[in-house]
Amino acid sequence: MASATYDNNNIFAKILRGEIPCQKVYEDDVALAFMDIMPRADGHVLVIPKAPSRNILDADPGALGALMARVQTLARAVKTAVAAEGVMILQCNEPAAGQTVFHLHFHILPCWSHVELRPHAGDMVSAEALAPIRDKIIAALQAG
Amino acid sequence: MASATYDNNNIFAKILRGEIPCQKVYEDDVALAFMDIMPRADGHVLVIPKAPSRNILDADPGALGALMARVQTLARAVKTAVAAEGVMILQCNEPAAGQTVFHLHFHILPCWSHVELRPHAGDMVSAEALAPIRDKIIAALQAG
Repeated sequence: MASATYDNNNIFAKILRGEIPCQKVYEDDVALAFMDIMPRADGHVLVIPKAPSRNILDADPGALGALMARVQTLARAVKTAVAAEGVMILQCNEPAAGQTVFHLHFHILPCWSHVELRPHAGDMVSAEALAPIRDKIIAALQAG
Repeated sequence: MASATYDNNNIFAKILRGEIPCQKVYEDDVALAFMDIMPRADGHVLVIPKAPSRNILDADPGALGALMARVQTLARAVKTAVAAEGVMILQCNEPAAGQTVFHLHFHILPCWSHVELRPHAGDMVSAEALAPIRDKIIAALQAG
């Protein structure tokens, strides 16, 4: 299908190639996870596969399954790191669904009962401001 | 952890046991998919694993990976069936994140550029009203 093309110059492909920086929380042969620079909540993390796919519609099922084990591990670590009461997992496919970067990604959104998520594509946060939360998530991953 | 208990009498466990009906679109040894009776969009489908888990936080990683292949297949079929422009995948963990039924489930939400999602837990739709959309999704799955 025409919509399922993959552009090697999307921003996440550049992050995977190390051409632009990210606040990395996890990396292995399957996945990379890093802080969203326009966080909808404190602790908002993105998990992306190393394998190229535009979104879930054209992903390799095996790669997707392997990715989800990382999403799960990261969801637990984020929840612990920021003492969230809940976690929302969101994955958007195509612009009509809010997809703005065309490399498959899962949002991990920490939630609290009385805290609204901030708007999608809102204010950008500096690397310095994200670093302390990133470090807490890395510590939670290491504590397992 | 105390929050990760599984209640065998949650409504999706009852649907899996056939104790209450659903508008089924897909079933195999891993997963069951059916129409959400409070649809946030026309074609809103829920995909649940047969294995019991409260949410993604306590799911077996292998069962989760297998489930995602079904989520992917269903996302494609729903998009085709209702001619959606995009698809959102949403999965909520714990009440603070909007989880109201405590059996792991993924929402498949068809999206169109100029259509807002209806509110979560909104109006209930009758089985008769859901059946024509269910049938289109089943047909899209069969067409593969």
